[in-house]
Amino acid sequence: MEDKGLLIVVSGPAGVGKGTLCKRLFAECGDLEYSISVTTRAPRPGETEGKEYYFRSRDQFLKMVENNEFLEWAEFCGNLYGTPRFHVESVLKRNKTILLEIDMQGAKIVKKAFPDGVFIFIVPPSLEELAERLYGRGTETPEVMQRRLAQAVLEMKNMKDYDYAVENDEIGTAVEKLKSIMIAEKCRVSSKP
Amino acid sequence: MEDKGLLIVVSGPAGVGKGTLCKRLFAECGDLEYSISVTTRAPRPGETEGKEYYFRSRDQFLKMVENNEFLEWAEFCGNLYGTPRFHVESVLKRNKTILLEIDMQGAKIVKKAFPDGVFIFIVPPSLEELAERLYGRGTETPEVMQRRLAQAVLEMKNMKDYDYAVENDEIGTAVEKLKSIMIAEKCRVSSKP
Repeated sequence: MEDKGLLIVVSGPAGVGKGTLCKRLFAECGDLEYSISVTTRAPRPGETEGKEYYFRSRDQFLKMVENNEFLEWAEFCGNLYGTPRFHVESVLKRNKTILLEIDMQGAKIVKKAFPDGVFIFIVPPSLEELAERLYGRGTETPEVMQRRLAQAVLEMKNMKDYDYAVENDEIGTAVEKLKSIMIAEKCRVSSKP
Repeated sequence: MEDKGLLIVVSGPAGVGKGTLCKRLFAECGDLEYSISVTTRAPRPGETEGKEYYFRSRDQFLKMVENNEFLEWAEFCGNLYGTPRFHVESVLKRNKTILLEIDMQGAKIVKKAFPDGVFIFIVPPSLEELAERLYGRGTETPEVMQRRLAQAVLEMKNMKDYDYAVENDEIGTAVEKLKSIMIAEKCRVSSKP
């Protein structure tokens, strides 16, 4: 049996820890390719161009939108985020696995373009913990935090549109679950004729 | 999130090694419950009553059929095999995972009763290897072997009715894949409203 390409989409409420999870998953899975997003938000301390994100000005970003270079893009808390289309398509053509870590609006749009993708929802252990994590990060204003928490509550209702839900209570356990999902999905019998 | 009960059905052509795989899976997964089948075939050397099978006479078996005690039962190469219903249902009620290792006729019937079960098809690395395994076992007559091989060729076409296909090329790898499927399925978002 040949290995098939997989599009894995990891999403969930902001602050749920999906970035940390995906970083660790990427470090542990040698054959996993990562999609790096383009954003107009300012780099956080320690973030590097082309590693966590491609940082672009709003004008540059909108030019890329015009050229249809994004698989999905969205405005989130005043900043633009987008997934470059070319890289995703080329990885899948090579029958490799690519991981997108995107917000839930983006996941919805990607699902329309790639209904066969594997959509994973990262669940916070509790809303209390989610709030703590968002405040603890200390990189945004309280107003942004409040908006994010309210959005998280709404977003939890969208879990039903996902294939899997992984609770991020303990990072090691959550990463093992993500790896298992990838292995299992490679064994999945195609539902197409 | 609460753990949910899972019915795992492992099936595939005779001689594909599903018995060995499931034995190892069972040894490595403490929380997995095993369903022991009832059969009218004679015990093979080393097989113990109540461990590999419950060995019953044809009359005793047919009495159980009459009493509706089987989830599925079938005649296979002149012997009767059946899955006792009670144990499966009680395990699922306790939200535990139970594994059935059954032939493909049985899997088809169980799928009707439990469409939400997880159906895994074990694939032989090649038909040549399957023939070698069947002959190598040396426990059956050449005629039985030939019938089994012919049946295996037909049965491969039913793979499309399964959720997963796991190639049994290397037992360690195959067991890891089965474990991953179980972990992933526990994360699956229910498709029911």
